[in-house]
Amino acid sequence: MGLSNQSVPKGHQTPLKSEEAIRSAVKNLVEEVHVVDVHTHLFPPNHGKLMLWGIDELLTYHYLVAEYFITAPATITPEKFFALEKQAQADLVWDSLFIQRSPISEACRGVITTLTELGLGELVERRDLNEVRKWFAKQTPEGYVDKVFELAKIKYVLTTNIPFEKKETVHWYPKAKEFDTHRFQTGLRVDQLLTGNWESIKEALDEMGIEHTIEGVKKLLEKWITIMKPKYFMAAVPPTLEFPSDEEMSTYAPSTINSATLLRRVLLPLAEQHHLPIALKFDSVRPINPALREGGDGVVTTKVSTLQKLCLNYPKVKFLATFLARVNQHELCVLANKFGNLHIYGCWWYCNNPSIVEEITRIRVELLGTAFTSQHSDARVLDQLIYKWKHSKAVIGGVLQDMYVKLFHAGWSLTREEIQRDVERLFGGAYEEFMEK
Amino acid sequence: MGLSNQSVPKGHQTPLKSEEAIRSAVKNLVEEVHVVDVHTHLFPPNHGKLMLWGIDELLTYHYLVAEYFITAPATITPEKFFALEKQAQADLVWDSLFIQRSPISEACRGVITTLTELGLGELVERRDLNEVRKWFAKQTPEGYVDKVFELAKIKYVLTTNIPFEKKETVHWYPKAKEFDTHRFQTGLRVDQLLTGNWESIKEALDEMGIEHTIEGVKKLLEKWITIMKPKYFMAAVPPTLEFPSDEEMSTYAPSTINSATLLRRVLLPLAEQHHLPIALKFDSVRPINPALREGGDGVVTTKVSTLQKLCLNYPKVKFLATFLARVNQHELCVLANKFGNLHIYGCWWYCNNPSIVEEITRIRVELLGTAFTSQHSDARVLDQLIYKWKHSKAVIGGVLQDMYVKLFHAGWSLTREEIQRDVERLFGGAYEEFMEK
Amino acid sequence: MGLSNQSVPKGHQTPLKSEEAIRSAVKNLVEEVHVVDVHTHLFPPNHGKLMLWGIDELLTYHYLVAEYFITAPATITPEKFFALEKQAQADLVWDSLFIQRSPISEACRGVITTLTELGLGELVERRDLNEVRKWFAKQTPEGYVDKVFELAKIKYVLTTNIPFEKKETVHWYPKAKEFDTHRFQTGLRVDQLLTGNWESIKEALDEMGIEHTIEGVKKLLEKWITIMKPKYFMAAVPPTLEFPSDEEMSTYAPSTINSATLLRRVLLPLAEQHHLPIALKFDSVRPINPALREGGDGVVTTKVSTLQKLCLNYPKVKFLATFLARVNQHELCVLANKFGNLHIYGCWWYCNNPSIVEEITRIRVELLGTAFTSQHSDARVLDQLIYKWKHSKAVIGGVLQDMYVKLFHAGWSLTREEIQRDVERLFGGAYEEFMEK
Repeated sequence: MGLSNQSVPKGHQTPLKSEEAIRSAVKNLVEEVHVVDVHTHLFPPNHGKLMLWGIDELLTYHYLVAEYFITAPATITPEKFFALEKQAQADLVWDSLFIQRSPISEACRGVITTLTELGLGELVERRDLNEVRKWFAKQTPEGYVDKVFELAKIKYVLTTNIPFEKKETVHWYPKAKEFDTHRFQTGLRVDQLLTGNWESIKEALDEMGIEHTIEGVKKLLEKWITIMKPKYFMAAVPPTLEFPSDEEMSTYAPSTINSATLLRRVLLPLAEQHHLPIALKFDSVRPINPALREGGDGVVTTKVSTLQKLCLNYPKVKFLATFLARVNQHELCVLANKFGNLHIYGCWWYCNNPSIVEEITRIRVELLGTAFTSQHSDARVLDQLIYKWKHSKAVIGGVLQDMYVKLFHAGWSLTREEIQRDVERLFGGAYEEFMEK
Repeated sequence: MGLSNQSVPKGHQTPLKSEEAIRSAVKNLVEEVHVVDVHTHLFPPNHGKLMLWGIDELLTYHYLVAEYFITAPATITPEKFFALEKQAQADLVWDSLFIQRSPISEACRGVITTLTELGLGELVERRDLNEVRKWFAKQTPEGYVDKVFELAKIKYVLTTNIPFEKKETVHWYPKAKEFDTHRFQTGLRVDQLLTGNWESIKEALDEMGIEHTIEGVKKLLEKWITIMKPKYFMAAVPPTLEFPSDEEMSTYAPSTINSATLLRRVLLPLAEQHHLPIALKFDSVRPINPALREGGDGVVTTKVSTLQKLCLNYPKVKFLATFLARVNQHELCVLANKFGNLHIYGCWWYCNNPSIVEEITRIRVELLGTAFTSQHSDARVLDQLIYKWKHSKAVIGGVLQDMYVKLFHAGWSLTREEIQRDVERLFGGAYEEFMEK
Repeated sequence: MGLSNQSVPKGHQTPLKSEEAIRSAVKNLVEEVHVVDVHTHLFPPNHGKLMLWGIDELLTYHYLVAEYFITAPATITPEKFFALEKQAQADLVWDSLFIQRSPISEACRGVITTLTELGLGELVERRDLNEVRKWFAKQTPEGYVDKVFELAKIKYVLTTNIPFEKKETVHWYPKAKEFDTHRFQTGLRVDQLLTGNWESIKEALDEMGIEHTIEGVKKLLEKWITIMKPKYFMAAVPPTLEFPSDEEMSTYAPSTINSATLLRRVLLPLAEQHHLPIALKFDSVRPINPALREGGDGVVTTKVSTLQKLCLNYPKVKFLATFLARVNQHELCVLANKFGNLHIYGCWWYCNNPSIVEEITRIRVELLGTAFTSQHSDARVLDQLIYKWKHSKAVIGGVLQDMYVKLFHAGWSLTREEIQRDVERLFGGAYEEFMEK
């Protein structure tokens, strides 16, 4: 039980002497830390159209499209809008949300931050969308990935890879494309198991010529584990899913295929066997307004006890979790305080707004210290990495400043190196420690 | 799809150059903006006793009476209290909540703000309730309306008008009194439909000599639409009400009268036909302590999905909505982000306290930009307009300062005129845009 | 209906003239106020091992043990950990949470504050755990109680006394030990009634030679009322408990023993008869991870309406209440606004973190003025009194500063004596007024 290698050797360090010195050190260390982005929807450049980037993708991202439609005249229906060329869609969004109104929402401000950080401040100042487009037209996907990773200070990202979607799997099978697998680390997405979507699973089985059985699904996933070398399984948990009890399980014949058997007879055993954690996203409901497409999903408050039962019944499986409902955050934090096989990460989607990131982070630090991952970007458009991390770091850094100052005033001396060690944990180190457990 | 007429012509304007300039502009613009108060319980002066105003009405408002009873000795029961003259009631409240304790609650502070804004600061300083009363005795209802609208900077208010309450309808039928219908715009209150209160509806039908049928209720409401010229229907949604599905509806004979048929066969079709939005208030439950009368209602967390189903199933009906439960505010905001036929307004009753107004406003701006109505007063006593708007503007203005400063630091230039345009939206303009959709 | 004796005579006092003067007065008055700690798990020194105190108890308190296990290597199981000597456990916690990481969580910071306040700042600075232990080894239980009560500025505490636990009852029966019953006032804990734990109740009945009937349970509790002279009954409310309706009660024979009859035929009648309030703790669930022992309990959101039904149906019984779920705090506050026989107290356990104490206190003051008890320590280790009150006072004092400043700016003049009167209410006076009702 010796000290971990993250222990900081004492003696060479001088404690910070004042509240100001602490605030300044924390601010600087958070700004400079390179992050592990534990969940994104990004793709490497050689996955072609799957890689989204550039101003028109930013402006037509579903957050902004949904916001646009609150303000749109009744004559512009979603159907008409989506029938337009992407650039025409972007023009409508830009006019309504940036020109007719100030871009004060989090999603709108994110576009401004991104452009400014890219060095396009002068074009933003002039609100010259066409010049912005010209700048982007000069970038290459490969060069732009480098630029964004450097600007956003990203160590590496985890991606979301769906073995049930043909447009994704063509890049992996029968021949996997080579790409920078340190920068883009894989997450194996398995929503189809938790929703019991047998049609979709059958197609994937057929693609590989595997039989339509529970054992077949296991084989399928093992094949994809070999192909993709994922760091974890990932799934959004359907709001209706409850942990199937042993009693319930005993009612199913060995050949039964449904979400309960796919969870308890396929996913959980595979996770244990392959030492692959399962990353879960709770509280989303899709879609509450189908006309908005990707932007039509909503939030609902589900039972945190589903996760508790997973952690308690599968002590050898590790779970990563994030919840979408603001009202579940406190209970989730208490749960994370109870289970060493649970690691909570990020402030997801509708919780990824400064006011909610702030309250969640305060609660987490107060209850968990540094044993969680403070944020993930959920980015689907590469450029979003820039603003999501800049905005999040400003909020989380502010919370941490307050926390360290209170600790200092309580009588604890702190060095810059100690704070750096903690900050690294909160932006990726705690995740890596958890993964190595 | 040209620019709306709220677009601000550029070129004549100078961007604000510093954080301080932005804070100062926002503060000033919020303080000075004239508001549309989208929901009140006020009445015009010629509706006699229905118009509540003056110090004794302020002190005996049900917020203060409820607060008084937490502190009251067991010997003063609600029954004894309500049997007293209004002035004696007010004396008890004043002594307990202002003299024995500092008037630090939101409702108490509101009385102080109101009196101070009315120019009675010196009497407040001396805590001279009787002199305050003398000042009010010199006011006339008509003059006082002018004074309050001017002090509170009100463009116009929406009122709540109940066609099922005789004490209200006498002012409208058989002959409608004339009053300033620009200042006092009508909302047609139809709670009886959602509660399925057939006894109350029958009385109203009889009053007009209309038959006791579903069609009769339609006729009744159409008659009242003609008489009152309302801007919208309004109802508090009973906490047990769920959206009746098509399947459920198919089980009811055409003549069935219950809350489901009154909602789906009367209210919603009328709303569509007459282009009248429906304003809904969710999460109140009445009464949790009947002895407190109007002050006895409580809060309960209902399903936001009821509203989602209304918006989805009735795309041609517009809904205004406010929720009473703090824990529903985030989910409501997400819902408003999905439906162009939904407009959320205000921070209602138990949410109309600075700390909750602040958190709600932050979440709303972050998720919705300026596409909502930041506050309504819910005033029942005319004088409350003064403090409700002053207090709310201080909080909302503070949030907006932070938001604009962040946008400025993100690299967006802002003019005073642009901020003014946005602020006007948040205090009435967004409501008017929604109503015109 | 004369002024209460807490009214402050006017004329001898000078109003505070500026925002700064008010902030300074509030800060100072909150720091200096001596508190009533309305719920603890402390014991007097002559109750032997039940009295927990000292650095190793602090470090192995279940908050810290739970936090330790989030970070512990998989090789250290709870079983192995709990098999160690207390000091070895404390060493592991210290190394993991204070040395390998900065002690930034609320529970960790509390240890630092406690040691610093005890005058051990220099040892803390050096992180010299063994010297800290040496200092504690020199203290006596009696002397240490005096020291802690003085440092933490405690008037008196309420304790939790369980007549169903032999290790506790030996200090009371057959012969009660003498101790300072002003400092340690008794609360009679009766969870076994609400859980319907008949096995445990029967043992206690047998101990006293009382018959196994509903009447017997009444006799048992009356005997313990005579022995312990409690100030109130206390129980944690099982999350599944709902108020048993009159109709439900009518289905039980007079001899039926279950949680419903123990509540409505034993506890509530006894409370009314003996004028003993019932203190209730809602929203805890035990255990969600049994391996963590005391630290394994979780939080769950229960129905606030259970408490509403108690208050409404038993107007002659007084209820004290605290809730563990953050999401119930607003609804609880509204409930407390409605019932004179309900008094809310403290921010419990997972809500006793600065960010949540702050939001709860704001909501309470806004809705209830000074008619609640702002905090209790829940301390189980004597030393925790020091940090829990110091931390809480910093947060609550900050909120009160804001509130008084707003009231001042609204036009109300305030004297130091008036603020002192209010502050005393919030830290014990409102509880005492409620108890005397």
